[in-house]
Amino acid sequence: MDRSTNRQWWYVAPPDGRLSHRQFELRETGIPQPAAGEVLVRQRYLYLFPGNRAWMRDATYRSHLTPGQIMPGRGIGEVVASNSPDFSPGDVVELDRGWQDFAVAPAEGLFKRTPDRPLDVVMSLLSGSGITAYFGLLHVGRPRAGETLLVSSAAGGVGSIVAQLGRIAGCRVVGIAGGPEKCAWLRDEVGVDEAVDYKAGDLASSLRRACPGGVDLFFDNTGGPVLEAALEAMKKGGRIVCCGATASYDCDAPAAGVRGLPMTLILKSLTMKGFVVMDYHHLRGEAEDALWSWHGEGRIKALRTVAQGLEHAPDALIGMFAGTGRGMTLVKI
Amino acid sequence: MDRSTNRQWWYVAPPDGRLSHRQFELRETGIPQPAAGEVLVRQRYLYLFPGNRAWMRDATYRSHLTPGQIMPGRGIGEVVASNSPDFSPGDVVELDRGWQDFAVAPAEGLFKRTPDRPLDVVMSLLSGSGITAYFGLLHVGRPRAGETLLVSSAAGGVGSIVAQLGRIAGCRVVGIAGGPEKCAWLRDEVGVDEAVDYKAGDLASSLRRACPGGVDLFFDNTGGPVLEAALEAMKKGGRIVCCGATASYDCDAPAAGVRGLPMTLILKSLTMKGFVVMDYHHLRGEAEDALWSWHGEGRIKALRTVAQGLEHAPDALIGMFAGTGRGMTLVKI
Repeated sequence: MDRSTNRQWWYVAPPDGRLSHRQFELRETGIPQPAAGEVLVRQRYLYLFPGNRAWMRDATYRSHLTPGQIMPGRGIGEVVASNSPDFSPGDVVELDRGWQDFAVAPAEGLFKRTPDRPLDVVMSLLSGSGITAYFGLLHVGRPRAGETLLVSSAAGGVGSIVAQLGRIAGCRVVGIAGGPEKCAWLRDEVGVDEAVDYKAGDLASSLRRACPGGVDLFFDNTGGPVLEAALEAMKKGGRIVCCGATASYDCDAPAAGVRGLPMTLILKSLTMKGFVVMDYHHLRGEAEDALWSWHGEGRIKALRTVAQGLEHAPDALIGMFAGTGRGMTLVKI
Repeated sequence: MDRSTNRQWWYVAPPDGRLSHRQFELRETGIPQPAAGEVLVRQRYLYLFPGNRAWMRDATYRSHLTPGQIMPGRGIGEVVASNSPDFSPGDVVELDRGWQDFAVAPAEGLFKRTPDRPLDVVMSLLSGSGITAYFGLLHVGRPRAGETLLVSSAAGGVGSIVAQLGRIAGCRVVGIAGGPEKCAWLRDEVGVDEAVDYKAGDLASSLRRACPGGVDLFFDNTGGPVLEAALEAMKKGGRIVCCGATASYDCDAPAAGVRGLPMTLILKSLTMKGFVVMDYHHLRGEAEDALWSWHGEGRIKALRTVAQGLEHAPDALIGMFAGTGRGMTLVKI
């Protein structure tokens, strides 16, 4: 054990408008002991994503997050004590036990990882966001070579992988992000063909310039005004994959409706498909094998921003909505 | 010739809010003469549909309708004089020459009909609305036996045929309409399994009661608040066919966005597909054959409301938005 106490971030108060430090409180307790059938895990990385904030807002694919509990979230780490025949100390596992140094978990809820892969790469590429990008783009969106693929929040955890998968599929990839620095990062690191800054002038006009033949496939992580502008840029018969609606997560007000729906779908014969990654759980192995192999061939980078230390977990989540992240956001514990 | 003059309804002023008689002016002219390659047609029925109003609002699949022209619209009638070798007096043709007794048209724009079918049945079942219902439900929506099909504007021209096609496909059909009298008509004439009155109380609750297992397939003619309520009633993995957005046609204000999009699409893995009937033009024969044969077998009724006399064409269109129509709205000239 490299620590004698267990630090935990508790979710203590709902946001009043935008996310702030007032939602979180750091508490310190003893290190828990695993009961029969349980293991004790020393967490090494936490995985943050926009859903963490959406949970505070409403019921989603999980129930509405209420104050008075450890802030939930996925992590990866190694088993330090086991009361289960299926796990031994040193095993690397993924788990869903929240923002804390140590966690006790029932053996059956754990997902074993091979120990020879860097944990931060695994968490960036093979955990939720990579898998979401894989199924959302390849199974729902079904890109074809030569198509124009537009990606919103292209500098985010899901978007940066979608953009790279789009290049592998032979698409011309146009990424949307906020600010010239992020757009340069999209071109230089993610490798998009063109980057569009949604903060610079009228987005619909910018998209028309960046996609002169129209958009065949739009992978949308944001909803809201970005989706409105993208509707105008869609080609007749185009497809929209709805993966997230981050534009509406970090506020209290009811999300305003997206103008242009359903009329633009009708006039352009568009298809809009929503999905959640859990729909594809049974195919997860396929996605992980493909992502890992493309990564080994240098065709996909596991782009990530790593906050150093559990104490910075709230900063990292607040920063994600302020636009400071590039690629996946992890917290190194 | 049964008349010595040609009456024409001109579109003379854009609506200020809701559609009214101020948009139209009746003018009387001489009967036109066909030039070389043209025919003169005595129109017998006009076909009205919500798009007539949408044209006044915005560009749609056709350019924005501007005042100072004969009110456009489709009709059916017989050739009374022909300067084309392809048409003879007595031929029955469909044409797109607007609200008038007589029309001169280039032969190549005319669509010949067999003369042995009642013109009002042809216009109700085989013209735009029937074909739209056929392709929208069967090709876009792809209903399966045992599914729950929800139809908005189910008492309208498209909706009343969609509902009947849904029964043929083996669906449980729930229709939405405004008021108890229309709902009774849906049950008695259209043959829906259940009718829901969107004017009676909270629509989302009514839909949950009418569709306790959720909606597999929603055929939407209205958009707006009805679409918002239907989103709540959709089953996981359900499909929405976007055919029209009549809720936004009869007003000047920009259409408000539909709340719940895209978030509900994501959380329930829904698919929303828009279409325009022109996409299926090459398959039109298939649709007409099927519709006519089901009609002959008594499995589809050509439900219609017929205004008597060209002078009542504006009343009929205004009445359509006031909810007075049942099934297709035709004007008998």
